Amino acid sequence: MAEGDEGKGGPALEMRPIGVVQSPYRDKAEIPKGPGAEHRAEGTLELRPELEPGLQDIEGFSHLFVLWVFDRAEGYELVARVPLDEEVPHGVFASRSPRRPNPIGLTVVELLSRDGPRLRVRGVDMLDGTPILDIKPYLSSVAPEALRRGWVEEAEARRRARATDLK
Amino acid sequence: MAEGDEGKGGPALEMRPIGVVQSPYRDKAEIPKGPGAEHRAEGTLELRPELEPGLQDIEGFSHLFVLWVFDRAEGYELVARVPLDEEVPHGVFASRSPRRPNPIGLTVVELLSRDGPRLRVRGVDMLDGTPILDIKPYLSSVAPEALRRGWVEEAEARRRARATDLK
Repeated sequence: MAEGDEGKGGPALEMRPIGVVQSPYRDKAEIPKGPGAEHRAEGTLELRPELEPGLQDIEGFSHLFVLWVFDRAEGYELVARVPLDEEVPHGVFASRSPRRPNPIGLTVVELLSRDGPRLRVRGVDMLDGTPILDIKPYLSSVAPEALRRGWVEEAEARRRARATDLK
Repeated sequence: MAEGDEGKGGPALEMRPIGVVQSPYRDKAEIPKGPGAEHRAEGTLELRPELEPGLQDIEGFSHLFVLWVFDRAEGYELVARVPLDEEVPHGVFASRSPRRPNPIGLTVVELLSRDGPRLRVRGVDMLDGTPILDIKPYLSSVAPEALRRGWVEEAEARRRARATDLK
């Protein structure tokens, strides 16, 4: 452990991308965000060729977790306004803000097909060229009746109430 | 980009833990694994105190994603046998093996309560002292009828068939 690492959660860890996302989005402004945003865009997860054996048997899974890097975000903000709720700021760990202490993104995609080290997927919300850190199979879901979505539900309710007022 | 980074997915990225997991598991052998393993163990996610503002409004969420480091795994194996299926090896990106190119773990936990920078949670499957990289709210699930679980379902079917043979 290097000097000065105490109290900062330990030494730094080095990660190296396993591949890159090919996405139709070239600019952040193109990515659907905020209330009602749907991610149906198709893209490709292209692995480094030497890692292709790590994809063995992945075709059987309908959905995958993709861990990736917000490589065009700078620094972080512990409390911030986000597109899902522009009125009230929320903590970064209670939101999907890109400006995080460790800028890791997490997306669930639907696996459409595989061609060697390339996975064709639906549901990308990353920019073209985004570095991929890991891919994991999606194995189980939280039951809808057990799920509470905190401030996201409250922000939705406020928007519905306002929409009714405007009628 | 440093020399020699070409073809390896780009330069290395530095991550620093945001906190640490307090878990009842001190040894890998204690963690439930393989078919039918249930993760009901309670533990605490303890953040670095200066990051506490990042937890603002997290109490409203029932479930969280925790991204963490397999800090006691060494190296990686692209194809390996795992506890869920001891007969047939599978690709590392089609499994939850700890020996991954980037040793990041992903766990969905249920949030029970918060005390300052400490989150009490249910469903830990990490060892005590595991470094945490990120926490995100769990916002939506894949519908069960849309989910296919590939070799995991096949391994379950083989076990069921064998259990019937043995009756």
